[in-house]
Amino acid sequence: MSENIKCDHKILFGKRLKKLRQEKGISQESLALTAGLDRTYVSGCERGVRNIGLENIYKLAIALGVSPERFFKDENCQENDT
Amino acid sequence: MSENIKCDHKILFGKRLKKLRQEKGISQESLALTAGLDRTYVSGCERGVRNIGLENIYKLAIALGVSPERFFKDENCQENDT
Repeated sequence: MSENIKCDHKILFGKRLKKLRQEKGISQESLALTAGLDRTYVSGCERGVRNIGLENIYKLAIALGVSPERFFKDENCQENDT
Repeated sequence: MSENIKCDHKILFGKRLKKLRQEKGISQESLALTAGLDRTYVSGCERGVRNIGLENIYKLAIALGVSPERFFKDENCQENDT
């Protein structure tokens, strides 16, 4: 694989967040505004550089109109010990 | 103590965490040790006073041998705590 991305939980979370946001057809800015978060924070979450907390996980889920469990589904890469 | 528990995400998370831990028949201390967390932190999560971050959500899920989405299933504010 050219993408040498480790199975990092934050990276996986970010990928799912981005996918769900794009499925809704909204921008990071729009999502951030709805969720009451900063756009740079949402961007950081999508890039997997933020250790997002429970409260903000729910803010994003509610803003996207999805259950927060959607951010944790499809654990399709091996669970490394990080 | 009042049973008037609001639909708080941290409270719900804590209830599910406690339920999953008890299903495994392990103590908070044992879970904390396996997850590499402090027992008081695990206790705080179960009581819904911690805004737990993604990394620790995964640590607990792995220590419990469950998918992290289990912490977010059944979004029901009326969950009884027996």
